[in-house]
Amino acid sequence: MRKIYLDLTSARPVEQRVFEFAKKYLTESYGNPSSLHSKGLEAKHALEEARSKVSSLINAESPSTIIFTGSSTESNNMAIRGTALRNKKTGQKVVSSTIEHISVLNPMKELQKSGYTYETVPVDEYGTIDLEKLSETVTKDTIITSVNYASDEIGTIEPIKEISKIVHENGQFLHVNATAAAGNIPVDVQKEDIDLMTISSNDMYGPRGAAALYVKKGIRIQTILPGGGQERGLRSGTENIFAIAGMGEAAHIASKEMTSEAKRLQKIGDAYKSVILKIEDSYLTGHPTYRLPGHLSFRFWRVEGESILLNLDAGYGIQVTTGSACSSRTLEPSHVLIGIGLKHEEAHGSMIITLGRLNTMEEVPYVADAVKGTVERLRKITAM
Amino acid sequence: MRKIYLDLTSARPVEQRVFEFAKKYLTESYGNPSSLHSKGLEAKHALEEARSKVSSLINAESPSTIIFTGSSTESNNMAIRGTALRNKKTGQKVVSSTIEHISVLNPMKELQKSGYTYETVPVDEYGTIDLEKLSETVTKDTIITSVNYASDEIGTIEPIKEISKIVHENGQFLHVNATAAAGNIPVDVQKEDIDLMTISSNDMYGPRGAAALYVKKGIRIQTILPGGGQERGLRSGTENIFAIAGMGEAAHIASKEMTSEAKRLQKIGDAYKSVILKIEDSYLTGHPTYRLPGHLSFRFWRVEGESILLNLDAGYGIQVTTGSACSSRTLEPSHVLIGIGLKHEEAHGSMIITLGRLNTMEEVPYVADAVKGTVERLRKITAM
Repeated sequence: MRKIYLDLTSARPVEQRVFEFAKKYLTESYGNPSSLHSKGLEAKHALEEARSKVSSLINAESPSTIIFTGSSTESNNMAIRGTALRNKKTGQKVVSSTIEHISVLNPMKELQKSGYTYETVPVDEYGTIDLEKLSETVTKDTIITSVNYASDEIGTIEPIKEISKIVHENGQFLHVNATAAAGNIPVDVQKEDIDLMTISSNDMYGPRGAAALYVKKGIRIQTILPGGGQERGLRSGTENIFAIAGMGEAAHIASKEMTSEAKRLQKIGDAYKSVILKIEDSYLTGHPTYRLPGHLSFRFWRVEGESILLNLDAGYGIQVTTGSACSSRTLEPSHVLIGIGLKHEEAHGSMIITLGRLNTMEEVPYVADAVKGTVERLRKITAM
Repeated sequence: MRKIYLDLTSARPVEQRVFEFAKKYLTESYGNPSSLHSKGLEAKHALEEARSKVSSLINAESPSTIIFTGSSTESNNMAIRGTALRNKKTGQKVVSSTIEHISVLNPMKELQKSGYTYETVPVDEYGTIDLEKLSETVTKDTIITSVNYASDEIGTIEPIKEISKIVHENGQFLHVNATAAAGNIPVDVQKEDIDLMTISSNDMYGPRGAAALYVKKGIRIQTILPGGGQERGLRSGTENIFAIAGMGEAAHIASKEMTSEAKRLQKIGDAYKSVILKIEDSYLTGHPTYRLPGHLSFRFWRVEGESILLNLDAGYGIQVTTGSACSSRTLEPSHVLIGIGLKHEEAHGSMIITLGRLNTMEEVPYVADAVKGTVERLRKITAM
């Protein structure tokens, strides 16, 4: 059977160029960057080169603003809990939108349990944060406000510049979870005035095991992983040079190719949209235009997303998702889809296609036919 | 110049067999184990296979006791803070020896800052924990006691069975940091009655980016990384399947080969000991016999360990260390060497050789000559 992977939002391959670049850090240049000998220095050099590349990708003011962590989840935790705990004296309120990733929501709830005030800001039907509500919710004692750069579930890109203005006028620090955005669309922490930002390696075809947190110069946060004091004392543990060097190279490739690749994905995405939305009772979720290139979130009335997923996989060799892989353990409907105002029964019919470097226009008719066939068959079965 | 790497305690290569086994999880089988489709199931299968292999290595009662984390530092943090915070009601005291790794000491100190009592137990001149002092220090309200299985700095293996008996008679849970031990010497959590244990991937030739925490069935700990709820809710973040599968395979290889490899390393180690201890004013640190195979920690009087390290590296292509790579950022003498009763000026002359699978008996004369020549030359310079 043909195999077409359309679930880039759940996991991406390490790109061949990244793998070739970084693999020597597994078996040859495996030194510990804290070692003083030549093998340590070689690793240290790779670490700092990666830091520069990631710094360049997001136009940070200096490579020293980039803290390498082990995952986006860890970066989000560090940004939220690290900032809130370190700056407790200036306020004990934290704010996020209702549709943030669970690794943002859960640290916020943890803070709430330990006495902080946690408030959420709603989004409109497209997933765009309600700026008026934001300016009402964020107050002087709001230490940290966390928003997505772009949603991995519905693709919507948030108006970060406006959000940043509001947060800085009314509150204190802005954390942006750019997991799905950085490396896929241009992000500029200086122009957009971002204080802390989560950057994923795997979401730009780098290895898992690395991610970064951008921390603007002058902002002080507390470590959530005390130990040997690596990464300016903020993230202890011997640095995973293979994953970090790979992330650096992935950032470097993204810097060069992101714009042309986005255009290519946009075109394929448009083709998908036009054919899939011809299916009866099918809808696009998220913003119609202001969204991640190659991100297509649909919902179908009277069909279970999970059934679509399983049928496309088993029957056609096509992999898609029905929501965040991180939430697939629960049977609850996605809080993101509920957040944009869908009813439970509407949210259950979700199917997300995300495209990447290996996908082509040529795949569109095959996939579109498969989706159409699957949705129609499932509806027939349900109707019987 | 010849290259001889003798710093296995700071970093190890990913072994070729491990690399060959695991590399497909980077570029081919890159699914997210939480995804419901075939690519996700493939990753899920790899994850559970690795869990079984690690479980077997330490004779755990069930694979479900193995929680994969990102590093030994994270496992130590999770064990100490996770247990202390979750079981606060049964006591607020924590205990460690004086010579624990910094990723054990620092979480303990963090707990102390937040109101817990932290007490340390001394060791004798060989680094063996003072069992009498241990039984005096560990009390009913001691939630967690943390000790090394074996020291990465001085090689000494602790009498875990006796320690476990004392801790369970007098206090509550025992955490063992087996970073340097697991995969290198036999460890049996059931026979040795260990409650929580840190296991490193890289220290048994697996990739960095994975480690594990064994948590005995029935023990409840709190997550230190909230988010998507992976790993039974204890460690959120998409699983790093490459590193985890690699760790599993490394554990599998270690299970089979550990005993014969330990004998081989023991012999080479003995050869090193006999020639290096012939150098004037040279001493072995740590236990003379009850120590990790292939771990040789020396000290030389009237020489700086750092100078030895740099000279061996630049002049002979030999990499050794002078202490924990994690502490190399400070100019302070090692707390481990101070812990075994050395004076500052004695502790500064430390040189650690750690042997691994790629090292051979044939290297001994070359290295021994290099060490002798270096120590003697450095002493002459100092004497001038």
